[in-house]
Amino acid sequence: MGIEIERKFLVTGDEWRHGAVGTPYRQGYLLADRECTVRVRTAGTRGYLTVKGAGTGLCRPEFEYQIPLVDAEEMLATLCQGSVVEKVRYRLDFAGHLWEIDEFGGDNRGLLLAEIELHHEDQPFARPPWVGREVTGVSRYHNAFLSRQPYRTWPEQDR
Amino acid sequence: MGIEIERKFLVTGDEWRHGAVGTPYRQGYLLADRECTVRVRTAGTRGYLTVKGAGTGLCRPEFEYQIPLVDAEEMLATLCQGSVVEKVRYRLDFAGHLWEIDEFGGDNRGLLLAEIELHHEDQPFARPPWVGREVTGVSRYHNAFLSRQPYRTWPEQDR
Repeated sequence: MGIEIERKFLVTGDEWRHGAVGTPYRQGYLLADRECTVRVRTAGTRGYLTVKGAGTGLCRPEFEYQIPLVDAEEMLATLCQGSVVEKVRYRLDFAGHLWEIDEFGGDNRGLLLAEIELHHEDQPFARPPWVGREVTGVSRYHNAFLSRQPYRTWPEQDR
Repeated sequence: MGIEIERKFLVTGDEWRHGAVGTPYRQGYLLADRECTVRVRTAGTRGYLTVKGAGTGLCRPEFEYQIPLVDAEEMLATLCQGSVVEKVRYRLDFAGHLWEIDEFGGDNRGLLLAEIELHHEDQPFARPPWVGREVTGVSRYHNAFLSRQPYRTWPEQDR
């Protein structure tokens, strides 16, 4: 069991793309409610099954297991609620911190999110120039929400 | 991914106990609806996370993964809906087939179920003398149902 502390931001610029190498992700949800989320993901040629609890503040208990790719693909095709979320995830270092940038595709094309994982809630970090508004905790930017209500269905003022 | 074909019976006698060695099971459900079940289980000192689809007839697609015991215990304690189902599972051979007998405890004490797993739906098998009424497909005998409505809350005529 791990504890996740993540802060999430909209991405405004393109400078981060220089030299960034991405991995294609596909993910869906067997369950997504307030108390518990069960996610199926393929990341490149790997499959994962992940259980997340509700947690408090920025912390959520998380249990992640690697599973056979064919299992993950089968669950995505037959058992997930909502639609499958497609994105390319880029990992890059900025000022000694690992950032993950998700460039969404399919029905969520146009959305770009940057995440940083921290060791504790108040940990300081440098804010990259390509990072815009913070959306940590804003539920419509959760991937589980995107699987039910994709970005392209959002009204303009919510983007 | 495997396909499960199981037939389930009430247990009437005690003859099966001779020499049978049981393993304690505790299990709960992150999700239990018609389309999909996500189960957390401890079996002795092992933990498991299992996803089952709806399937048709006696067949259900099943994806089972061994996980650390501490993860399973934490999920049982904090993330499962309903109550934790406790039972001792005995495995024994009868006429060349493996039978599993579940003797429930806690709020389901008094319930005993025997299951046989088959390779196809019409496969013949010998019926042991300690096997009573068949309850295959009867939803109140599903463990997920028992976690929400334990056996001791059932009206007498449903037992």
